[in-house]
Amino acid sequence: MPLPRRTFLGAGLAAGLAAATAQPHEPPRPLTKADLPTPALLIDLAAFEANLRTMAEHGKRAGCGLRPHAKTHKCPEIARRQVAAGALGVCVATVPEAEAMVAAGVRGVLLTSPVLEPPKLARMAALARRPGAVLLAVGHVRQVELLVEAARAAGVVVDVLIDVDVGDRRTGIQPGQPALRLAQQIARERSLRLRGVQAYAGHASHAVGFANRAKVSRAAMTLAAETRELLAKAGLDVPILSGGSTGTYNIDSAVRGVTELQVGSYVFMDVDYRRIGGRDGPVYTDFRPSLTVLTTVVSATHPDRVTIDAGTKAFSTDGPHRPEARGRDGLTYARAGDEFGTVTATKGALLPRLGERLEFLVPHCDPTVNLYDRLYAMRGDRVEAVWPTVARRETATPGGERG
Amino acid sequence: MPLPRRTFLGAGLAAGLAAATAQPHEPPRPLTKADLPTPALLIDLAAFEANLRTMAEHGKRAGCGLRPHAKTHKCPEIARRQVAAGALGVCVATVPEAEAMVAAGVRGVLLTSPVLEPPKLARMAALARRPGAVLLAVGHVRQVELLVEAARAAGVVVDVLIDVDVGDRRTGIQPGQPALRLAQQIARERSLRLRGVQAYAGHASHAVGFANRAKVSRAAMTLAAETRELLAKAGLDVPILSGGSTGTYNIDSAVRGVTELQVGSYVFMDVDYRRIGGRDGPVYTDFRPSLTVLTTVVSATHPDRVTIDAGTKAFSTDGPHRPEARGRDGLTYARAGDEFGTVTATKGALLPRLGERLEFLVPHCDPTVNLYDRLYAMRGDRVEAVWPTVARRETATPGGERG
Repeated sequence: MPLPRRTFLGAGLAAGLAAATAQPHEPPRPLTKADLPTPALLIDLAAFEANLRTMAEHGKRAGCGLRPHAKTHKCPEIARRQVAAGALGVCVATVPEAEAMVAAGVRGVLLTSPVLEPPKLARMAALARRPGAVLLAVGHVRQVELLVEAARAAGVVVDVLIDVDVGDRRTGIQPGQPALRLAQQIARERSLRLRGVQAYAGHASHAVGFANRAKVSRAAMTLAAETRELLAKAGLDVPILSGGSTGTYNIDSAVRGVTELQVGSYVFMDVDYRRIGGRDGPVYTDFRPSLTVLTTVVSATHPDRVTIDAGTKAFSTDGPHRPEARGRDGLTYARAGDEFGTVTATKGALLPRLGERLEFLVPHCDPTVNLYDRLYAMRGDRVEAVWPTVARRETATPGGERG
Repeated sequence: MPLPRRTFLGAGLAAGLAAATAQPHEPPRPLTKADLPTPALLIDLAAFEANLRTMAEHGKRAGCGLRPHAKTHKCPEIARRQVAAGALGVCVATVPEAEAMVAAGVRGVLLTSPVLEPPKLARMAALARRPGAVLLAVGHVRQVELLVEAARAAGVVVDVLIDVDVGDRRTGIQPGQPALRLAQQIARERSLRLRGVQAYAGHASHAVGFANRAKVSRAAMTLAAETRELLAKAGLDVPILSGGSTGTYNIDSAVRGVTELQVGSYVFMDVDYRRIGGRDGPVYTDFRPSLTVLTTVVSATHPDRVTIDAGTKAFSTDGPHRPEARGRDGLTYARAGDEFGTVTATKGALLPRLGERLEFLVPHCDPTVNLYDRLYAMRGDRVEAVWPTVARRETATPGGERG
């Protein structure tokens, strides 16, 4: 979407874009980083495109499908580019995300989170009217019953995966016999179609060091693969085994039986992920950091620190790591409330000046993107496009919330 | 706003509200808590109204004005109710918030954060065309110069407060002579009008125990009052001294020279604030908790825990405290990623069931509200209104971003 919707632009930016397109006889002044109000969320297109290619090539080489997780970016334009690069569809974590992605023309949208609310199941059944549009992960007998009611009421057949708990003890049914019984319950329902198994090993994705991650993730995904095998032997049709994460993509794709990966963060990367390379060791460099927050120094009263306009409302604070100044060694960020952060300099490094702009790698990409309504897609210093993010509202109401 | 804008409602909720108003011959079924999709942000109107009254009565009794901070709620309806209860206006932390509040008809909007970006200063100057609409806090010579340029370009006179750093080392100029010199610079500018002093003692607001808070906050606000005195003695007109917080409202209003309070969290309260009563001692009960997040149990596979649909994207995670289950003793919440939390029960307490709803007090109100687009205003179990929140976008662009 090179020309974003008018409502997502302020007058200044819109005028800038208009000037860049509407006056062929005058040299258009392209919008640049310096024009953007801060805090602003930026995506470096060169890094992003490289990440898309790297993962797509890995999938092809490994003979493993990709259904990237859109909860990471909530951005239809990124989803479309993932599909254009060969993805089977996208995963989503919420019903509003599913609606937004389907509305954006994406097919094969897998809702990976369990949903127990009947109105939301009715919304998913409505999406299922378009064949191939959506799949749901289910992990409980009761959830299956509620989904059957919704599917019958809508007169549709809904595709489902069994969500198997392979060790992160968060969602899903136990592997083995409990999963088999649930699969058999589903197979008896004419309004459902069993399509396979999903397993997410959250405890593996950020394990530090490749060997360590490989051990944890192989054990988890092998459990999932064995469950899929068990279902197949019982005569059930289970073509899909979906799992994996950015931290384990090249581990899980080598586990026999895994058919597709739910990788999310690879498009952006973040400080948390860069640290999984090793403890005090190399950073994780399989993918390039593409996501940053642009900030402005708004106070410089003290000799030992400056204050920037980015705090708890600009960066996620759930992880152990801090934002990292890009291209500026020796600077340390610390949160200073909802609206501010302070920056200090190690010996020998220069403190930024009042009004100066600083760009930071984010600690954790998903919940940081969740704080913004748009991504500025940057080609170097130039704003090439503005990409709206959607479905950030957690308080979706039936039928609404699209984009 | 009893009937919210259509675009903020899904079809289901809108239909529910329509049914509640449009068919006098049929008994309307009022929307209740059970109808709301989760996670949902709720405000208990009885508690909220009691908090409004308590603070308004304190202000009157203490002879101190109120200009409550709208960064806490970002909600024009709450701002209007604060003004109706006697407030002088509201404080805001960002330019989009200022624009949204002015657009909602609120006057006396004080931007408490320093702004260094010329396009944002131009937006504030545009708001200043309406006399009495806005005030800006300034803390640097350079900021004054930029603001003068913006005010001259717009042909307006802008009201300003000197932002004084009274110890939290985040924003503002040093008290005493540096503040006086800045005030004299402002007084020389015909496009600016000096109105007084602002001081925020962030280090005082959450100090545990009243005596402790009183000591820290009195010291800080006395510095601010002395600076105001210094400016007055130099012949400057400084009618305003704005400071304070929910934790120190009844401490700061007793400091001689403080004319108005920037209290924010009192409308909602949160777990962080409840804990300032004392260490292992009484909770802080000056105000009643009115803000909760409604969640659903979406997984119950294990005997020792259940999973709810509220994680990092539903609760702020910046503070030391966790969400607390309301009306359910013996339950403990732990984050389990962006979309989920787990709930465990202490011995003797019953684990919630699959599909059951749980309501949680939030750890920190401001950044939690920042995650939602609306507040469901509850009268007991009934949804009395839906209040949009606005200006959550940190990536405002000039001229846009209103509501």
